[in-house]
Amino acid sequence: MNPTSHLYPVILAGGVGSRLWPRSRKSAPKQFLDLTGNQRSMLQEAYDRMTPLVPPERVFVITNWEYQDAVQGQLPELPASNIVGEPAARGSAAAIGLGAIHLLRRDPDAVMAVLTADHLINKPEVLRQTLTAGASLAQSGELITLGIQPSYPETGYGYIEMGDALGEFNGLIARRVRRFREKPDLPTAEAFLAAGNFVWNSGMFIWRADVIMEQFQRHMPELFEALTHLQPALGGPDEETAFQRYWMPLSGNVTIDYGVMEKADRVAVFPVDMGWNDIGSWAALLEVLPKDANGNVVQARHLDYESANILAFSKNRLIATIGLQDMIVVDTDDVVLVMPASRAQDVKKIIQALRQKGLEHYLE
Amino acid sequence: MNPTSHLYPVILAGGVGSRLWPRSRKSAPKQFLDLTGNQRSMLQEAYDRMTPLVPPERVFVITNWEYQDAVQGQLPELPASNIVGEPAARGSAAAIGLGAIHLLRRDPDAVMAVLTADHLINKPEVLRQTLTAGASLAQSGELITLGIQPSYPETGYGYIEMGDALGEFNGLIARRVRRFREKPDLPTAEAFLAAGNFVWNSGMFIWRADVIMEQFQRHMPELFEALTHLQPALGGPDEETAFQRYWMPLSGNVTIDYGVMEKADRVAVFPVDMGWNDIGSWAALLEVLPKDANGNVVQARHLDYESANILAFSKNRLIATIGLQDMIVVDTDDVVLVMPASRAQDVKKIIQALRQKGLEHYLE
Repeated sequence: MNPTSHLYPVILAGGVGSRLWPRSRKSAPKQFLDLTGNQRSMLQEAYDRMTPLVPPERVFVITNWEYQDAVQGQLPELPASNIVGEPAARGSAAAIGLGAIHLLRRDPDAVMAVLTADHLINKPEVLRQTLTAGASLAQSGELITLGIQPSYPETGYGYIEMGDALGEFNGLIARRVRRFREKPDLPTAEAFLAAGNFVWNSGMFIWRADVIMEQFQRHMPELFEALTHLQPALGGPDEETAFQRYWMPLSGNVTIDYGVMEKADRVAVFPVDMGWNDIGSWAALLEVLPKDANGNVVQARHLDYESANILAFSKNRLIATIGLQDMIVVDTDDVVLVMPASRAQDVKKIIQALRQKGLEHYLE
Repeated sequence: MNPTSHLYPVILAGGVGSRLWPRSRKSAPKQFLDLTGNQRSMLQEAYDRMTPLVPPERVFVITNWEYQDAVQGQLPELPASNIVGEPAARGSAAAIGLGAIHLLRRDPDAVMAVLTADHLINKPEVLRQTLTAGASLAQSGELITLGIQPSYPETGYGYIEMGDALGEFNGLIARRVRRFREKPDLPTAEAFLAAGNFVWNSGMFIWRADVIMEQFQRHMPELFEALTHLQPALGGPDEETAFQRYWMPLSGNVTIDYGVMEKADRVAVFPVDMGWNDIGSWAALLEVLPKDANGNVVQARHLDYESANILAFSKNRLIATIGLQDMIVVDTDDVVLVMPASRAQDVKKIIQALRQKGLEHYLE
């Protein structure tokens, strides 16, 4: 049997991408933007990565109800029934559960590949190779994570501690997961890199849909109960009522890592190098996007005199820069943001301040 | 006789203010902008400084033909005949000459105070005191300059070396001018300050209109000739023809300093402290305008996290800044400019580049 014949990529596309404000907005979050300058949004790129592997009918997108039209607009080839809406975010575990019950209505042998809509993957062929490998391994009931070979001691990601090898699948070695480790401090991250058996947690997973449902039943019975009630209503006249009754009361923001992966027994990982970056800030874009002759990342009409390593983003205006170093300038219709690259994580401070001052319209 | 009864302030308002690009534009140069945030343009402030001293009928503005309507719009009280247009800039000597022949048609005893439209003067009462003093001294035929007591060794201004005292006028000491000195290098500027008898050349002057005409006759005969031919045509049907014939051929850009002052015999100076700043760059504005609680100069909707000593200018957009130091952010409808305050003089490099690339519309 072709290991991918029951493989269903499920792209999570419900995020708001607030760290890339002011470009990423509530009305047009990160995954719907072309941040890399290649005329395709991050969601479209996530979709494009899958079409060499599976037909469009097997690609699903989970998103907020309010973004369903945007998803369909960006992915016209995708059947409307494959765009799964959440009336409200209830964390990644719930989103994955919603995907799983959709797949199981279609195919009781569905293998679910949980993917992200807003990460950069420069080696999509490695991702596809890994999904094919994972589809094989998943048949044995494993919960499989995709681990990223770390290149430096990043403190902003979770890590996965790897144990023994489980075997080779489609040319890739799978390893037993010993433990999930939360975002470490710098000495710990350095120790992880030195140890050599740690990878970054990418938030991408592969498993049989029925297996993850068993895991919900064991570790998240409240979610399992809700999904069980939702499933028969999907696509029918009572769907909205069922969501009101079973989905809305779910507790806030339980991640799949916390809710299932850290508690499950049979967890495996493929440590891979797929040119991955989560584009978690403007500084990440400055790091990963191609630079011009002056060492600057420019997606704007830009005129510079003696700047280096700056990022200049604007759709409409000329950005003129003089003598800047390691600086980020983002211009939008209603906001200009300027900061050193090293302060890119503090965009959240500005967002907090906008909320406190009642200026939410700058976030919308 | 009241020394000011024949005093005519003549405000030079023909500049383009390119060092304050992108706010200062060909269509709305520096002098027409409210840069200080007090709802009056720099030209209006220059006019306001004079009205306690002389009636509006005695204030003249020299500007380019294309700015005459703008001047009238900003100064509705000013008689239209007091707005003197140049068809093209021919340097400050020619502009002053044009003013002088206008005054002499009105009043053969006119005392001309040459003032600037685009400088900041925080102590206007000192300026008025000096003009009154100068109006007295000018009766003896002196060419009088207003010198600014230097507070630091600026290398961007010309200096005036002062000699003996000529006497006291209206409470102010006038001194003989020994020599005009061009923009010095830093050691020279430091030596000037240490010597104590040097002041900055403000570009403001007082003299009898007939006296400056005699000086033109002696030192700039070509200009004198042109003015002599222009004078009878002023305000008549042949004015435009006369300008075409006599004004347009005048050589380019001769300053009054080079053309007359450096060559004249009887030159005096009042060294004064009038809170003067020529606002020669965005850095100057950052220096002189009032700062908010965080030490920033803000004329914008602005949201900041941990910046200090920045200037943020925008009419329409929110400027968000994080962790900036000594930085200038200027936002306009079509341009965003970002630079360290220390690089503010390099705006001219951007302007050169715009011209080279055929992007002059960003200057208009």
